[in-house]
Parts: sequence; C-alpha cells; structure tokens
Amino acid sequence: MSNIKNDLFLRALKGGIVDRPPVWMMRQAGRFLPEFMAIRDKYDFFTRCQTPELASEITVQPIRRFGMDAAILFSDILVIPQAMNIPFEMKEGLGPYLPNPIRSQKDVDETIVPNIDETLGYVMDAIKLTKEMLNNEIPLIGFAGSPWTILCYCVQGQGSKTFDKAKEFCFTQPIAAHTLLQKITDTTIAYLKEKVKAGVDVVQIFDSWGGMLSPTDYQEFSWKYIKQIIDALKDDAPVIAFAKGCWYALEDMSNSNVSALGVDWTITPQIARKLTGNKVTLQGNLDPTRLLSPPKEIKKLVTKMIDDFGKDKYIVNLGHGILPNIPLDNAKAFIDAVKEY
Amino acid sequence: MSNIKNDLFLRALKGGIVDRPPVWMMRQAGRFLPEFMAIRDKYDFFTRCQTPELASEITVQPIRRFGMDAAILFSDILVIPQAMNIPFEMKEGLGPYLPNPIRSQKDVDETIVPNIDETLGYVMDAIKLTKEMLNNEIPLIGFAGSPWTILCYCVQGQGSKTFDKAKEFCFTQPIAAHTLLQKITDTTIAYLKEKVKAGVDVVQIFDSWGGMLSPTDYQEFSWKYIKQIIDALKDDAPVIAFAKGCWYALEDMSNSNVSALGVDWTITPQIARKLTGNKVTLQGNLDPTRLLSPPKEIKKLVTKMIDDFGKDKYIVNLGHGILPNIPLDNAKAFIDAVKEY
Repeated sequence: MSNIKNDLFLRALKGGIVDRPPVWMMRQAGRFLPEFMAIRDKYDFFTRCQTPELASEITVQPIRRFGMDAAILFSDILVIPQAMNIPFEMKEGLGPYLPNPIRSQKDVDETIVPNIDETLGYVMDAIKLTKEMLNNEIPLIGFAGSPWTILCYCVQGQGSKTFDKAKEFCFTQPIAAHTLLQKITDTTIAYLKEKVKAGVDVVQIFDSWGGMLSPTDYQEFSWKYIKQIIDALKDDAPVIAFAKGCWYALEDMSNSNVSALGVDWTITPQIARKLTGNKVTLQGNLDPTRLLSPPKEIKKLVTKMIDDFGKDKYIVNLGHGILPNIPLDNAKAFIDAVKEY
Repeated sequence: MSNIKNDLFLRALKGGIVDRPPVWMMRQAGRFLPEFMAIRDKYDFFTRCQTPELASEITVQPIRRFGMDAAILFSDILVIPQAMNIPFEMKEGLGPYLPNPIRSQKDVDETIVPNIDETLGYVMDAIKLTKEMLNNEIPLIGFAGSPWTILCYCVQGQGSKTFDKAKEFCFTQPIAAHTLLQKITDTTIAYLKEKVKAGVDVVQIFDSWGGMLSPTDYQEFSWKYIKQIIDALKDDAPVIAFAKGCWYALEDMSNSNVSALGVDWTITPQIARKLTGNKVTLQGNLDPTRLLSPPKEIKKLVTKMIDDFGKDKYIVNLGHGILPNIPLDNAKAFIDAVKEY
C-alpha cells in the first residue's frame, strides 16, 4: 500500500496521526456531476456498470474536478443478486425493480452462490483499468451492500419507505431468510476478495436499510452477516462499515475487526466517539442536504465537524450519498474546507 | 378527569403506580379494520374528517373490537395547514398532495393564523360527539403534527423519503422558514387549547419527520416549536410528544414540561429510560412490522417489552402507526398480551 502517493486515507484507517483528515463523498461518482450526466445520457445503467472503460471513467471524474483523497469504483450493490440469479431492472429516476422477488424457501433455493469470475469479471476489469488511470495517486475503494440491505431489495422487489415485505419475510419465514442471508454473505465475501485481488485498497459495506430494524432484529438479521464479511476480509484490506440509522449498534460494531465505521448525520460526533470508545476510525457525517447551504456556511459546518470528531482517526464524508441537486461550488466548498483545515 | 372509569392511561401519564400499563396503538382507527374500510369505501377522506358522526364512529371502532385503554380522535395533521390557507388533496393510496407548496417568504406571508372556531369547528363537534359515545369509559386523545412535520408537507408538497425541498427551504431561507414555523405553532396552540375545551383529555404531538434532521438542526427547526406548544398546553392537559427517529433529542425533551415521550423501535427500552432518566412516562415501541409475527411470538415480545420498560410510567404502544396489512388476530394478541400481563 505504501506505493500510493496520497496515503492520507489509508493512514486515517490505520489510526495514524495526520495533518488533516482525508475526505471523499459517498456517491461522488454520480448525478450531481455534469460529466456523469453526459455519460448517463448516452449509456444505460447496465452498460455503464458493465463496460470497464465507462465505469473507470465515471470513477475518476470527481477526482479530476475536486481532488478527493479516495476514489470509489462506480458500480451498484445489486450486481450481487443479479449474479445470484435474481435479475433486476433499473428504472431511471425510480430506482431498481426486481420482477421476481424472493418470497418463499423455494425462491431462496433457486438462487445460486455464483462463480465470481464468470459473473462479475467485468467489475474486476473495471478495477484494473481504474487503478491504471489513478496511477497510484490515491487509493481506490470497492464496495458491496450488506446482506440485509440486499435482502431488502430481493424480497421487496423495489425501493420502499419501510421495506415491510422484506421484514415480513424475515419475521414469518426466518429459516428461509437466514438461508438467503448466508448465500448473499458467501457471495459477497468471494466478491470482495476478488476485488481486493484486482486492486481495490479498501472495501466499504453499505447497510443502507439497517436502520429499519430494531436493535434486537439488527443483530439477528444484519450485523451477524456483516461481521462474517469483516472477519473474512480483515487480512485482505481495511473494511469500512456504514450502517445508516444504526447508531444503536455502533458500540458492538466498534468491538469487531472493522477498520472504520461510517455514521449518518443523526448522531453528534461526540456521542459517536463515546459509543465507539475511540477504538475505530469514524467516517461522516454532514447531512447531505446541508450542501444546499451557502458555501460560506458549508465551510463553517465542516470545520466545526472536524473539530468535534477530532482530526485523527477520522475521514470526512457526508452522512449519506450526495444529492443530485447539489451545486458544484457547494461540493467544492465541502472538499476545500477539509484541505484548508 | 376523575370521572373516567378506566383511568389507567391518565394515571400512567401522571407517573402513578399501576397494576399493568395502559395500551393503545397509533393509527388504531385505521385501515387494518374492516369496519373502517367499509366507511372508507363510502365516504372520501375529507367527508370522513369533517363529518362528526363519521369521525366519532371511526374513533370508537377499534375500542369496540379490542378495548384499548385510550381512544384517539380520527383526524389528520394536515387540517392545520388547510385552515392556514394552504389547501391539500388526499390521494388515496398515495397520501397528501399540496398543489401550491410554500417556497418563498411571499408564500409564507400569504398564510394566515386562522380563527379556530370558524375553520376547525367540525373537529370540536367530533370531539363532543365522541365523548358522548365513549360515555366516560376511557380517555380521548387529540393530536396535532409538530410544526416541523407540518412544514415538511407544506414545502415539499407531498410525502418524501428525504423531504429535501423542505430542508433546502430551511437551510437557504431560514427567516421565511422560522416565520412559517411560528405561524404553525401559534395555530397549533390555539387549536389544541380548543380541543381540550371541547373535551379531549390528553394531547399528542406527532413529529413524524423530526428524524430527518441533525441533532443541531432539530433543536433549531423542530424542538424549539414543540417546546412552545408543550409549555402553552401544560396547564390544560397532559402532553405526549412522539418524535420518530429523534433518540438524540430524548434527553432534552425529558427536561421539559412534557408528560410522556413516544419512542420508536430503533431504541432499546433500557437506553430510552437511561436517556430520559425516569423523569417522564415513556410510550412505545414495538416495530409495527413485528405484528406480522405469529400471535404467540407477539405475546412474548410484548411481555418482554413491558419487563424492559417496567410497568410504571409506561404506556404500551407500537413504535409507529399500525400497518394496513396486520391481521386482526395479531392486533388482538398485542392488546391482550398487555391486559394479561
């Protein structure tokens, strides 16, 4: 890893002393960028994901413009169910749609734990190409959804405010649910190991819908499986776990082999530090909507946020993905505020 | 208040010793009941709200079937903006739609703080009729939305996963936002005082979208105004505040004049008690989706929940409104588990 010129991000993950914290933004390779929209106008979602030249170009676009301290490979968490024989469509503007949602043990039995090379080789090609383009300037993050979050889509069949069908499946057919969660976990572990071999320096697990569960149900249906992934990957690369809305699990999560925990904006830096006992690096947590504030106010908020988290064992980020309607100057103000800290 | 035969709910709100905690369910007068659906098939949303005979009948329907310890008047939080000159439509299945959302100081200036009798007299008539029908058997709850939650709909114009336009309005036009929040607050205080005069025994404030805000923004845009309402009502009736997703504000909220705090299912009873220091009664918090579990498991979960909260200073409820697809036997199991405790 030492061959990466700007290793601020890797040092923060190891807990080392830094002059300033590193910064990147969830969904930085995304819809707020005009250069991304230009590609999006020409190529559909699957073409963008599955064409290494497009995925790598999209990955480096925000770096060229803003100079973040880490890049994150353009992809989607639903490539995993797709490889498992659970096809999905992407309805632009509406999000994912799974025509054959999982609703029974029989449906679960029909899913497969795939050969990663055969099904997701295009991701590995995109990683290799991106690493070449990044030229060892900054580290590259690869990601996966948490098994629970993947299950949410597989069972619900689409986005939802409550994922009630996914929860109903877990609460009324727990054996089938756990079988599916384990299959997703096994696939994810193999997938992330291949990603590291292909060149990603760090992996992040997104548990976007963990916060739908009670603390007890979270342990049973989500954290148990994330922990398996962390334990399996710990000797391969640093792992960041971001569980939106799961403040209640932070203490448990900090006692694992995770390198960093992402936090959303509904927790103060002080309480996040208290719950995690300074045992792990924290990443977050500006409210993405706050990037609609004037640039001057954004700078103030970022400076206060760094002061509150402390500059060490800290990665500056948003509390969730950047919104499509954020002005470029405001995103720049966010990044620059960190660099000028 | 002493003339109410089953005063378990009122005693729990005062913090007294009880044999078992009282129980009711948010949205108990709602779509999971076939007798409600029969009325819904015949009369549209506004007719149901504005016809005292229908609103009172809907209010007592769940009591007849399950015998909860409190009734809550059938109405909607959006009657407040409607009275303030911000009309809305109710699209069945999709929720509220406001054709002229508030987006500027000028829009705010065009709203009014209405005369309650003239605009919302039908609510008072429904209360009087419901009180007659309840015949002093159990107490009646009246409710209002929090000013922040009302603003969310007024600005966004409809339901949303993120209420990004509402937050943008607050972050970029804070003076206009605060003017609107104060007008909603003034209207809500007058409205709730009239409701108490008309006969409700307790009021509950629903801050359904408070959890969208960071702890700092919550203080500025939501709690400040809820506190005004609590302080204005404290000599009229006990006030319950339910702020979904706002675990981070529980400590501050418990130091107010509130009688009880509602909590959602993403917090353990133990931590909720710890944060509120046993200063107030707590209400909650079973995951509404957990009512899809088999009745036997529901009973176990309820018993454990009462054990964990403790039977005193506690009101059994769900952590949010009951879902439309909950079987009647499961709702009954929830209520009965409390009565058999």
